[in-house]
Amino acid sequence: MAELGTLVLLRHGQSTWNAENLFTGWVDVPLSELGQSEAREGGELLAEKGILPDVVHTSLLRRAISTANIALDVADRHWIDVRRNWRLNERHYGALQGKNKKQVRDEFGEEQFMLWRRSYDVPPPAIERGTEFSQDADPRYDADAPLTECLKDVVARLLPYWESAIVPDLRAGKTVLVAAHGNSLRALVKHLDGISDDAIAGLNIPTGIPLRYDLTEDLKPVTVGGEYLDPEAAKEAAAAVANQGR
Amino acid sequence: MAELGTLVLLRHGQSTWNAENLFTGWVDVPLSELGQSEAREGGELLAEKGILPDVVHTSLLRRAISTANIALDVADRHWIDVRRNWRLNERHYGALQGKNKKQVRDEFGEEQFMLWRRSYDVPPPAIERGTEFSQDADPRYDADAPLTECLKDVVARLLPYWESAIVPDLRAGKTVLVAAHGNSLRALVKHLDGISDDAIAGLNIPTGIPLRYDLTEDLKPVTVGGEYLDPEAAKEAAAAVANQGR
Repeated sequence: MAELGTLVLLRHGQSTWNAENLFTGWVDVPLSELGQSEAREGGELLAEKGILPDVVHTSLLRRAISTANIALDVADRHWIDVRRNWRLNERHYGALQGKNKKQVRDEFGEEQFMLWRRSYDVPPPAIERGTEFSQDADPRYDADAPLTECLKDVVARLLPYWESAIVPDLRAGKTVLVAAHGNSLRALVKHLDGISDDAIAGLNIPTGIPLRYDLTEDLKPVTVGGEYLDPEAAKEAAAAVANQGR
Repeated sequence: MAELGTLVLLRHGQSTWNAENLFTGWVDVPLSELGQSEAREGGELLAEKGILPDVVHTSLLRRAISTANIALDVADRHWIDVRRNWRLNERHYGALQGKNKKQVRDEFGEEQFMLWRRSYDVPPPAIERGTEFSQDADPRYDADAPLTECLKDVVARLLPYWESAIVPDLRAGKTVLVAAHGNSLRALVKHLDGISDDAIAGLNIPTGIPLRYDLTEDLKPVTVGGEYLDPEAAKEAAAAVANQGR
């Protein structure tokens, strides 16, 4: 059998709402200046290491799409094939969307806050239809789009896309870039590395640093956890993400 | 039969080489600041007029790709499906690529200069393989990619993509944005409007102003020449383009 292509995951950098410490989820905010420069640095790493994507898969959210556009332009791969799907979106944060993280923690307490942020199967309350930060009127989503999600829900809606759209590109020998979000990428990494429902809480994926996975024929990672293109920066960044919202 | 979707053509704005008055062709130069702002204005026109693309087709060249990315982001349609193909590329300018337009006119005379720029079937000399502005080593092109083209060549390589990729999207009722170049769009408009080989020399498509075509079932324009989303600006810009290189 032919060797599988290389999988490269890229988590978008800072958005304007990350900068304001707001729960974002499916609210379609842009990258901040810092987030744009993180995307450029991601592209420079791809070019430096000679990891040249043949196809990019993104979510339907601007911060992932812009990250892919910027990084690929820097890496001189702006011309490759593009696939987009809502199944790569960030976790829907339900009624927390648009709320300040610190205020939510102060209002609901540390325990509930951490359950919503890091538990595997406790979703926040559903967002009310027709409210400011809901996606009811958004033409990119069907009427049956989720109104809240826990990470388990993200795994469940991500895997059909992984199997039907990304794996075929890998089996075709392509280098595949997936530009997405903290939780959709955690969901994918959980699946690839076989991380337990409990242990996934401790995994943070740093922003803007491409994470490379080489896979065996049965889609197992050659190196568990993959390989960051800048391992030192990844170590520092993961620690910083863990402290977000404090 | 179902009504056809709307076709919208968008010619990229000023590139850094347009600004320097150089023949560009397949050399992959970026948009200038002015070109980026033209793309934003194009996106604002789409949003204002409520022309919301469902899919975008671009060339493989950065100035068209960036134009699409910027315009769609402004129009809040950054998340739509993307198709790219070399058949939408600018005309290959052969050995003229990288040369100053004024110097070429001074060296070869006005008549030869205008033949190369505006004749239907006289290509410039082929570019020499392995030289600075050739595309031999470019991974996005096959070994049988052209080394020069006249507009007739562009029509011949564009039409298979029109038929096989763009028309099916229109027949599916989609609003289709084509973000491309002066000559690939002239080739398409020549075909749509049934412009003669002689008359096409006089047609200039302004940059950054979306040009809308509604088509009948047999793919004829409802309005010959289409409708610019900003007709006044289009009139002024067309006159300016006609004077380019003077």
